[in-house]
Amino acid sequence: MNLDDLPIRDELRGSTPYGAPQLDVPVALNTNENSYPVPEAVVEAIVAAVREEASGLNRYPDREATALRADLARYLGHDLTVANVWAANGSNEVLQELLQAFGGPGRTALGFTPAYSMHPILSRGTGTDWIDGRRNDDFSVDAESAAADVRKHDPDVVFLCSPNNPTGTALGLDVVEAVLAESRGMVIVDEAYAEFRRPGTPSAISRLGLSPRLVVTRTMSKAFALAGARLGYLAADPAVVDAIQLVRLPYHLSSITQAAARAALAHTDALLATVEAIKEQRDRIVSSLRTRGLEVVPSDANFVLFGGLGDQRAVWQRMLTQGVLIRDVGLPGYLRVTAGTPAETDAFLEALDFSLKGQA
Amino acid sequence: MNLDDLPIRDELRGSTPYGAPQLDVPVALNTNENSYPVPEAVVEAIVAAVREEASGLNRYPDREATALRADLARYLGHDLTVANVWAANGSNEVLQELLQAFGGPGRTALGFTPAYSMHPILSRGTGTDWIDGRRNDDFSVDAESAAADVRKHDPDVVFLCSPNNPTGTALGLDVVEAVLAESRGMVIVDEAYAEFRRPGTPSAISRLGLSPRLVVTRTMSKAFALAGARLGYLAADPAVVDAIQLVRLPYHLSSITQAAARAALAHTDALLATVEAIKEQRDRIVSSLRTRGLEVVPSDANFVLFGGLGDQRAVWQRMLTQGVLIRDVGLPGYLRVTAGTPAETDAFLEALDFSLKGQA
Repeated sequence: MNLDDLPIRDELRGSTPYGAPQLDVPVALNTNENSYPVPEAVVEAIVAAVREEASGLNRYPDREATALRADLARYLGHDLTVANVWAANGSNEVLQELLQAFGGPGRTALGFTPAYSMHPILSRGTGTDWIDGRRNDDFSVDAESAAADVRKHDPDVVFLCSPNNPTGTALGLDVVEAVLAESRGMVIVDEAYAEFRRPGTPSAISRLGLSPRLVVTRTMSKAFALAGARLGYLAADPAVVDAIQLVRLPYHLSSITQAAARAALAHTDALLATVEAIKEQRDRIVSSLRTRGLEVVPSDANFVLFGGLGDQRAVWQRMLTQGVLIRDVGLPGYLRVTAGTPAETDAFLEALDFSLKGQA
Repeated sequence: MNLDDLPIRDELRGSTPYGAPQLDVPVALNTNENSYPVPEAVVEAIVAAVREEASGLNRYPDREATALRADLARYLGHDLTVANVWAANGSNEVLQELLQAFGGPGRTALGFTPAYSMHPILSRGTGTDWIDGRRNDDFSVDAESAAADVRKHDPDVVFLCSPNNPTGTALGLDVVEAVLAESRGMVIVDEAYAEFRRPGTPSAISRLGLSPRLVVTRTMSKAFALAGARLGYLAADPAVVDAIQLVRLPYHLSSITQAAARAALAHTDALLATVEAIKEQRDRIVSSLRTRGLEVVPSDANFVLFGGLGDQRAVWQRMLTQGVLIRDVGLPGYLRVTAGTPAETDAFLEALDFSLKGQA
C-alpha cells in the first residue's frame, strides 16, 4: 500500500514532508538552534517545575495558559498584559491558528520570498492562497515596493519576517507601517530571531498601538535555547487573542510545557546570557566570509546567508563530509550557517575553506 | 476594539470558544479525567526523564518521535510497529492532521451525532463540510443505517466514536466493517476511552488489516491519567502515517512530551491499575441511577449519560451549588457524569438526590 493509493487531497500528491535532514554530525549549524546547552540552574528549575505538576497530570491543563501568558507579557515589556499574549506549541502553531482565524479558503496571504519557508506551507495547509511578494536583488524589502505589492494583491494576511529567515536582515519599521497603512487585512511580523538584532534595530512590538491588525510572533526556540520545549507566542491587541480562541485546539498546551516555559522565563537573564556570545560569532562569520571575498547578507539574527558559491549544493555536500552540516535553503549560489560557539565557527570556516578549495 | 471589528472569517463571527467551564470545585466530574493522581513511582520516572532531556532542550526534538511511537506500538500489540503509529499533542491534533490530509475544502466528513463535539468543530476548522448521521432513539448506531448514511452522503471522512462520547456505549465491529465496506473515504474510529470497555467488547485495532483507509485514534488522557501531558496517537497502515507527515507541523511534539510519555508507558501497569476501580464506580453509577428510575445509557467508558431529568440545566446548576460539577452536553433531559473515586460517586449521588428533590 502506497501513500498515493489513499484518498489524500490532490494538492498533497507528490509533495514531501517539510524539514531539514535530521543527520547526526559533530557540528550542526543547519536549523538556527542555540548551540549552548541549557545552564544547570535552569535545568534544576525546569525539573522542579515539572515535579510540581507531575502528580496532577491526571487533570487537563489550564486551557488559557494564563500564568504563562502573564510571564511572557512581562518579558516583552511595552506595558503588555496577559490579554495581549497567546502561546502555543512553537510559533508554527501560533501562525497556523492566525491563518485559521484570518486566512483560510477563499482568502489570500502575501509574503516576501525568500522568507520563513513555513509561511507558504502553513498558508496552503489552511487553504489560504499564497502570493509571492518581491524582494530587491540584495534581498532587502523597502516600504514603497512592499506597499505597492499590498495595493496590487489586497491580501487578507501579510507576512513580514524580521529579522528575516533565511536572509538575516531586520526590516525597518517604515516597512511595517507602510504595509499596515496600505492593507485591510492582518499584518503578522515574525520576530523569531528578535533577540539577536543589531543595536538600534527596533521591534514591531513598539508599534502594536498603531492597529489591532498588527501581530508580532516570537519564540523561545532561539535566544532562549528552548527549541526542544516548543513554545511560541504572539503579542497583539486583546481582540486578536479572542479570535485565536475560536480556532485553537482545546488544551493545546500541556501542563508540563506551561510549567517548563515559566521556569525558564524566571531565569531569563541566565538563558539570554548566550545572546551576546552568539552575536559575536555571527559578526565574526560575516567578516570572515567577507575577507574570503564571498557575498554576505547583513545579519540581525543568529545565522548568516552568504553567496558567490557557484554550485552551493556541492559545497554543502563537501562540508558535510567534514562533519559540518549547514543549510541549503534553495537559493542558487547561497548557503546559510547558524552562529554557534567559537569552536563551531572554527570548524565551519575550516570546512568551508576545504570545500571551496576542492571546488576551485 | 472588539473581535468583530477584526477581519476574521465570516463563519467564526458570533461563535464562542469550545470548552467546558473551568470552575474550581471540590468534585469535578465534567471532563472525563481520571480522578486518580499519577502514582509517586511514575512521577519520579517522569521527572528523571525530563531531567535527562533538559540540558539538551536547546536542540529541536526528534521530528519523527520514533522512540515514543515504537513504545506506543508495543503497548497496542496486534503486531503493530513504529510505522503504524503517529503521535501528537492530544488526539485533537491527530484528528486535525487527518482532516488536513483527507478532508479540507471541497470535502465532507460524516459523523453520528451526538458524538465527540470536537469532530464537527475540527472539520469546520479545516474547511471540511460536516454531515450529521443518524443515531437510533436509544443513541445506538447499527450497521445497516450507518452504511445507508454513508451510501447517501458519500463522505471523504467518516468519524465513528467507540466507546462513544457523550453516550458511553462502544460500537459493534459490524458497524465499523459495514461503514468501511460502504465508503471510499477514510474511516476514523475514535477510541479515546477504549481501556474502559466492558469485557468482550473488541477494539477496531483488530480490524486494521481490513483496509489502509481504517484509522484508530487513542489518547493517554483518560485511562493513563495523563490529560495534562497532552498525548494522543493513532494506529493505521504506514501509508496513513506517511500522509500525516505531509501536513504535520515540523517539531510539533516537544522533547519533554516525548520523554514524559515514554516514562509513563514504561509504567503502564501502575497507571492502568486505576482502570478496574473506575469501571467499578462506573457500574455503580449505572445501577444507582437505574434504582432511582432514571434512564441510563449503557457505558463502556469512564462516564455515564443519564436522562429523564426534565430541565437538565436546572439540575446541573443545583448540583454545582453542592460543589459537584458534571456536564451538560446539550441533550435535553440528559446529563453526563465522569466515574471517579468511590468518594466522588458518593458526593455525586448525594448532590443529585438533593437536586432532584429540589426539582420535584
